[in-house]
Amino acid sequence: MSAPDPAVRTLLLVGIGAGDPELLTLQAVSAIAALDVVLVLDKPGGATDLTRMREALVRRFAGDPAPRVLLLPDPPRDRGELDRPGYSGAVRSWHHRRADLLEAALAEQLLPGETAGILVWGDPAFYDSTVRLAQELERRGTVPLDWRVIPGISSIQLLAARHRLVLHGIGEPLHITTGRRLADAGTLQHENTVVMLDAGVSAAVLLQSPEAADRDAWIAWGAALGTPSEVLVAGRLAEVIDEIGRTRDAVRAERGWMMDISYLRRGGPPGVAD
Amino acid sequence: MSAPDPAVRTLLLVGIGAGDPELLTLQAVSAIAALDVVLVLDKPGGATDLTRMREALVRRFAGDPAPRVLLLPDPPRDRGELDRPGYSGAVRSWHHRRADLLEAALAEQLLPGETAGILVWGDPAFYDSTVRLAQELERRGTVPLDWRVIPGISSIQLLAARHRLVLHGIGEPLHITTGRRLADAGTLQHENTVVMLDAGVSAAVLLQSPEAADRDAWIAWGAALGTPSEVLVAGRLAEVIDEIGRTRDAVRAERGWMMDISYLRRGGPPGVAD
Repeated sequence: MSAPDPAVRTLLLVGIGAGDPELLTLQAVSAIAALDVVLVLDKPGGATDLTRMREALVRRFAGDPAPRVLLLPDPPRDRGELDRPGYSGAVRSWHHRRADLLEAALAEQLLPGETAGILVWGDPAFYDSTVRLAQELERRGTVPLDWRVIPGISSIQLLAARHRLVLHGIGEPLHITTGRRLADAGTLQHENTVVMLDAGVSAAVLLQSPEAADRDAWIAWGAALGTPSEVLVAGRLAEVIDEIGRTRDAVRAERGWMMDISYLRRGGPPGVAD
Repeated sequence: MSAPDPAVRTLLLVGIGAGDPELLTLQAVSAIAALDVVLVLDKPGGATDLTRMREALVRRFAGDPAPRVLLLPDPPRDRGELDRPGYSGAVRSWHHRRADLLEAALAEQLLPGETAGILVWGDPAFYDSTVRLAQELERRGTVPLDWRVIPGISSIQLLAARHRLVLHGIGEPLHITTGRRLADAGTLQHENTVVMLDAGVSAAVLLQSPEAADRDAWIAWGAALGTPSEVLVAGRLAEVIDEIGRTRDAVRAERGWMMDISYLRRGGPPGVAD
């Protein structure tokens, strides 16, 4: 049996759930307690509220001695890119700049044998770029790296829990997509749809659809889930869309950021027997 | 302000994650510690291995005094029903029989003001009937009930974490469906598909598809996730499907049950830049 490579660094991608520290798993808590270094890739200046929440999490769960916190200045990216054509190309170039930063940090600031962690809101498996960053570092192969993923409660799940929903009727599929895709489609192509990364209230397009099942859609919506500003709205889309728009604006004004998520069901709310 | 109704019972639907107790959230741990009664709806006789895992969880996290554990004999249901036409009708009738049992247990065995919990494998939001049971009890209105949902790590997420995957390319949708739906469709209708409740290896149909993207599909598969028997296989579907079939049989022989899940990607594995 060969000895482990002494040059190897460990990188943990830790899903920290959707806002509330009580959503961390025991596995995530243990992982944070064992970190030598916390790598923070937050946007500079923006979302300072989120950065504070993350710092509080580290203080609450970190071991002794406390881990070193390294801020990696995230290359600027306009969230408006989400709505532009060429979106995935722009994201790829941004990923490569982030990978450069992360690679340098791991090589220069992490000692061989040490463990670094990146705390990922929600779950690293959904609409997050951190796994791709680690895959890119592994592909480059310049820093010997053992990397692992720890799942976290996603906003999809917190939305469902707060509205006390199963996200589909019996045996039905669940389609998870983006606001841009929904706006482009103009219709719900599946019985059950979750919309993430929504720059506006993309579900508004459904009210213009020629299909009655779209115009009669039912929505369960939430914003700032897991935070003290959490808000929930549910009902027939046509009846609650104005309230969702107003609530969205209010959360953005209060927190300085907006993260929301919608569950949409064609034709009406899920029934008890669905 | 009116006083709370003293007759109200609290029912917590606690997502306990996909097998490993370390996947419980802090919220779930606190919830279990506060329970007066644990309601167990497992199938009688079947899956005793799973029942033992659940009992170990209660012992580990329960408060003092320990909660009363009430076994509700689950009305028999053949898992083969999953593959028969009339599936959702059969499930509905089964749900009503379960609701009767749960209603009687809450009325007769839980004192007003007490809290009962149902521990749900994975997350109650996905392919689980417990939320619908609680909705049905609320609709009946015979037992005053305050019920809440605590999300848990689903096997979808554990599969992604173990294979170190994001479950979609940049900005792409993720489609979550059942083995039966995939077998009926005979093709992958989306870039990214997660298959749950699979009675066999439904992905086999893809190898007979006229579409090259189906025949070239990439699969990340896992069974008994989060347990000591956990197994993972990933690769081109055509190359690994036999290994998946053999591994499935081996897990079933070892554990006496089989729960597996697949992520399928059209045309090949997810790229670093996807």
